[in-house]
Amino acid sequence: MPADVRLPHPFDPLSKEEIEAAIAIIKKAHGDNLLFNVISLQEPRKAQMTAWLENPASALRPVRVADVVVICPDGKVCDGLVDLQKGTITSWEELDGLQPIITVEELQMAEHVVRKDPRVIEQCKISGIAEEDMDKVYCDPWTIGYDERWGNKTRLQQALMYYRPDVDDCQYQYPLDFCPIFDPIRKEIIHIDIPKVRRPLSKVPAINYHPAGVQKQGGFRSDLKPINITQPEGVSFKMTGREIEWQNWKFHIGFNYREGIVFNNITFNDKGTERPIFYRLSLVEMVVPYGNPEHPHQRKHALDIGEYGAGYMTNSLSLGCDCKGAIFYLDAEFPTRAGGIRTIKNAICIHEEDNGILFKHSDFRDDSVIVTRARKLIIQQIFTAANYEYAIQWIFHQDGTIQPDIKLTGILNTYSMNPDEDTNGWGTQVYPGVNAHNHQHLFCLRIDANVDGPKNTIFAIDAVQAEAPVGSPGNYYGNAFYAQRTKLATVGQAKTEYSSATMRTWDICNTNKLHPYSGKPSSYKLVSREIPGLMPKPGSLVWKRAGFARHAVHVTKYRDDELWPAGRHVPQTSGEQEVGLLKWSADESESIDNEDVVLWHTFGLTHFPAPEDFPVMPAEPITLLLRPRHFFSNNPVMDVPPSYCITPSQVAAKAQGVGPAFDKNSAYAKPEKTCGSCHGENGTNGTTDGAH
Amino acid sequence: MPADVRLPHPFDPLSKEEIEAAIAIIKKAHGDNLLFNVISLQEPRKAQMTAWLENPASALRPVRVADVVVICPDGKVCDGLVDLQKGTITSWEELDGLQPIITVEELQMAEHVVRKDPRVIEQCKISGIAEEDMDKVYCDPWTIGYDERWGNKTRLQQALMYYRPDVDDCQYQYPLDFCPIFDPIRKEIIHIDIPKVRRPLSKVPAINYHPAGVQKQGGFRSDLKPINITQPEGVSFKMTGREIEWQNWKFHIGFNYREGIVFNNITFNDKGTERPIFYRLSLVEMVVPYGNPEHPHQRKHALDIGEYGAGYMTNSLSLGCDCKGAIFYLDAEFPTRAGGIRTIKNAICIHEEDNGILFKHSDFRDDSVIVTRARKLIIQQIFTAANYEYAIQWIFHQDGTIQPDIKLTGILNTYSMNPDEDTNGWGTQVYPGVNAHNHQHLFCLRIDANVDGPKNTIFAIDAVQAEAPVGSPGNYYGNAFYAQRTKLATVGQAKTEYSSATMRTWDICNTNKLHPYSGKPSSYKLVSREIPGLMPKPGSLVWKRAGFARHAVHVTKYRDDELWPAGRHVPQTSGEQEVGLLKWSADESESIDNEDVVLWHTFGLTHFPAPEDFPVMPAEPITLLLRPRHFFSNNPVMDVPPSYCITPSQVAAKAQGVGPAFDKNSAYAKPEKTCGSCHGENGTNGTTDGAH
Repeated sequence: MPADVRLPHPFDPLSKEEIEAAIAIIKKAHGDNLLFNVISLQEPRKAQMTAWLENPASALRPVRVADVVVICPDGKVCDGLVDLQKGTITSWEELDGLQPIITVEELQMAEHVVRKDPRVIEQCKISGIAEEDMDKVYCDPWTIGYDERWGNKTRLQQALMYYRPDVDDCQYQYPLDFCPIFDPIRKEIIHIDIPKVRRPLSKVPAINYHPAGVQKQGGFRSDLKPINITQPEGVSFKMTGREIEWQNWKFHIGFNYREGIVFNNITFNDKGTERPIFYRLSLVEMVVPYGNPEHPHQRKHALDIGEYGAGYMTNSLSLGCDCKGAIFYLDAEFPTRAGGIRTIKNAICIHEEDNGILFKHSDFRDDSVIVTRARKLIIQQIFTAANYEYAIQWIFHQDGTIQPDIKLTGILNTYSMNPDEDTNGWGTQVYPGVNAHNHQHLFCLRIDANVDGPKNTIFAIDAVQAEAPVGSPGNYYGNAFYAQRTKLATVGQAKTEYSSATMRTWDICNTNKLHPYSGKPSSYKLVSREIPGLMPKPGSLVWKRAGFARHAVHVTKYRDDELWPAGRHVPQTSGEQEVGLLKWSADESESIDNEDVVLWHTFGLTHFPAPEDFPVMPAEPITLLLRPRHFFSNNPVMDVPPSYCITPSQVAAKAQGVGPAFDKNSAYAKPEKTCGSCHGENGTNGTTDGAH
Repeated sequence: MPADVRLPHPFDPLSKEEIEAAIAIIKKAHGDNLLFNVISLQEPRKAQMTAWLENPASALRPVRVADVVVICPDGKVCDGLVDLQKGTITSWEELDGLQPIITVEELQMAEHVVRKDPRVIEQCKISGIAEEDMDKVYCDPWTIGYDERWGNKTRLQQALMYYRPDVDDCQYQYPLDFCPIFDPIRKEIIHIDIPKVRRPLSKVPAINYHPAGVQKQGGFRSDLKPINITQPEGVSFKMTGREIEWQNWKFHIGFNYREGIVFNNITFNDKGTERPIFYRLSLVEMVVPYGNPEHPHQRKHALDIGEYGAGYMTNSLSLGCDCKGAIFYLDAEFPTRAGGIRTIKNAICIHEEDNGILFKHSDFRDDSVIVTRARKLIIQQIFTAANYEYAIQWIFHQDGTIQPDIKLTGILNTYSMNPDEDTNGWGTQVYPGVNAHNHQHLFCLRIDANVDGPKNTIFAIDAVQAEAPVGSPGNYYGNAFYAQRTKLATVGQAKTEYSSATMRTWDICNTNKLHPYSGKPSSYKLVSREIPGLMPKPGSLVWKRAGFARHAVHVTKYRDDELWPAGRHVPQTSGEQEVGLLKWSADESESIDNEDVVLWHTFGLTHFPAPEDFPVMPAEPITLLLRPRHFFSNNPVMDVPPSYCITPSQVAAKAQGVGPAFDKNSAYAKPEKTCGSCHGENGTNGTTDGAH
């Protein structure tokens, strides 16, 4: 790096120039013929980074290091590290039996090979597709998961097959019943899985969601009037590089090929003190197990983040479509396979939204009232995993709450079925000839806790009835209940499940800092209500490969590079070897009491498809909250200017005709015009105006 | 009713004129000295109403009937019915041992009596309050719940006591430790409950959320830039009287003293066919049990809807405060105690909001994409129950989903504590000297089902693993799972609990109408995830009085007037007699299979207070979904105009330089300007513009 270039923040993703520099260094050492799989920031070592964050002026600035994965022309995989300051390769290792992440470029290759493969053409004929229509045959290449017939020595994809009568047709309504296996290194089909029961191509008329398709079904509705959202004075946040400041929040917004958005060093300015909350926060893995036991559907259980990358698959976002208002965008830069640069414009969008009522109270005695509106900050990415889209919104609230909020949309993965074929309960016929299998979407949220400092302790909190029976002196009327706090003192104890009966939450506590009033530790509470059990059984392939999903919560001690719970290289892992979180949580006796800890939370939903989800799925939401409890001395948002406030004394003065109490004393309330009829917020169409 | 007045819709609340007419008729028959407690629409008998809805031109129009409750000067209570067409009293009954709902006027009386009562003044002195400061003593009069010392013959309130050093101070930081019992008929204090441990008035400095209080703590933040929401062409809904039409939805918006908003005859226009979904939908009851077993805190378990009325307590809403955009308001009219009219302006606000992405899909092959934004319709009321506020938003989504969404805000109920007193886990010291007790907020949603007609059947749906073990032929890889459907065929079977492990939902099905593709019954699915168990124990006072909260779901056969699950007259019921839902569901063998059924769902949250909730609570959300499943033939929102759409053929044409494919073929997509930089949606402050 030339010394005169503005230094990147140590948490910043590698810049285009840094990626190019790493590629040049690697090419020089290992030749021009490599396929670049990953060139991404090796995150700074925490000890060093923490020292620098505390004292950026004098502490050693963490060196920029590129974490590199390349595939050699013969399919060999190498992991490496490049010191970008020295311009040297500091580590280089050839891997055996490990397959790195599948890039979009690799996925895009399969279809072209499939269409020309004679055995595939043969199968298409059997399905009822003429050879001259092979250009209408499509495939969604998926990770093969793990197939014991080939193990992990050969890099493979499974090609889920579809047909489009017209290039603009939704292919998912014309699934084919066989499944070619694709080798992206040799660029060939090595096998085709053919079911015993054959299902010829459906001849049912197409249903499409594009304008021509909608036109055929009667056209678009015309009764939606516009809603305009404007921010004439701009946004309320401030960006310094990739560090954002908004409503007392301050944090760094990173992005990598794998997790997509990564937050670092999340702090909250509490009356002048920048208090740390999380050192790092992101979605680190997910798994989408499908529930049809018939071969080869067991292979459909993509670990999308580890196997394809939420970063690599991320959409380029656009105004008025993916977000409305005043938007700030951040791009993403990745290497191409050949060693060029691929830029995703607008990979992240950042904006504010009005969020309804922040707090309100009316006094029934005199109608004195305060009502204050809430604002939220949304940092969004959307990624497409073949058929599905995941819109990930990280919502920051003014009151210190962080809300990861995911909307699932896109298209169901589908398989073909014959007329009157029984789905056996493993799926739903969502359109004639289209079987959408039962599945789950399970996400793993990684919380590198830093609540008032790195030493944190996790408690499970359950609402339980008092032990004393009804009629006894201690619980005469039977109403007693309390919050049972169970300290998760070891890695073993921390492997915990959800309980709806007790409305279990998990508190990330700093037991070294007790609240002056409540006496309870400063904490952040994980409030998560959508925690289905892992449907694949203990001992199953998914249970082995996606070990993080065995429990709602795991807690481990922090160690550098322990980021991805299904392992560093996920495709084609068998699950027989303990990798990732299974390995890191193997020593169940390890103490996590008052240590630098990481909480891993698996949540999600179980989806039994219905025809309403087809051919494109209205967004289904899933959310959870991270809420400050016993963290602030009191309500931290009282200083948000109210929309309206009139106190009892002002009500009384007004009643006695004593001047405009409201205007005089309530200078911080919004000017009266916004409470009646004003620019931008007209109370129209109603029989009445605002009530004040 | 004069014949020339426009006839009200049979579901309309009683108008001012109708209430006045009823009062005049009652006064004429029973004298001028009555206290009017309720004058509200007796809802039309369903059989008659259904006939009229089917054929309004020729069927008999349901007669307007006033449901009347009065309190005689001696405290006797009478229930009556007034036929407003004939102008006659058709029913009049004197009640014994029943206390009707407590009106706001009754609540407002207590404080004046309390301040003058010598025994209260005496207790205030013991607390450290001088007699001349009695004007600074306040009370929140609450329903007494049930106190066995007085039973239900005398109408009573318990007065929770507070102090305000300054008239504008938040009183909940200065709770007093004794509790007077108030008789609103005799207007006197009949008893004072005095604790064994005395807790003198706190002398801690005040913390206030009003502008002067905030100013003292450093003033308001000044870094929030405005967000303007405008609808220059007005709203997209149409009101006909109180019937609303929006995005295929059509329904009637009622309002009564008790439940507040009531929806009737909810239908969805499915490609020209108006399909019924729910006959009636509302929140019919709630209970807020507190968890401190010390006497007399067991009495704190208000059934707010039955004991005070969500209608009677409703706020007058105002633009820019409670809602933003183009708002339509509806007022509410109630009788006063003396027989006048009390109008609550803007009791209901109705507006639309942008709701993010409705659906999106990108093709990874060519970046062809469709993205369509969602709109939601919000029908809101906010009511104040002494310290707490409940903002109830009924959200209607374009895809047929109905989402009751409640935000809890306002102020914690508080009790005094001495320095270093132990809360014993029954509460939290949220501010010095302020003990906020553990409590729950449990709501009862009543769904009078009408999914494709009145004959419906309820199923419990559980996600379960296949029985076949891992390695067996039927489940070799162990991934098999399915939706177990359990028919709730009888009232007894329908008393069901939530299970998070199986992500249980309840489907309201029309088994007479199977989906042509899926073969499953047309249905609405209740997706509710916040269902804490009732913390008061079986046999406890709350368990007896709030029987509806014993189970997550009850189902009963429809019968007229079975509306309110804790009984018609709730205050001071002992729970010893089975009333309301307990009575209606007592015959557990009754068939509810393919019958006109009502589903009662109890949901809510358990609140362990924290200092962040004080002195005013940032809104805490709770929500659930009613989703169409196997109801529509396919995605019902494909005809919503997309924000952006480009098909594969258009991408290809564009790549080959063939004209502006997007503009030419995608005429229904929004004009390009909204996807770049345009009026009202500027992509400002960012480094980049929209991505298309």
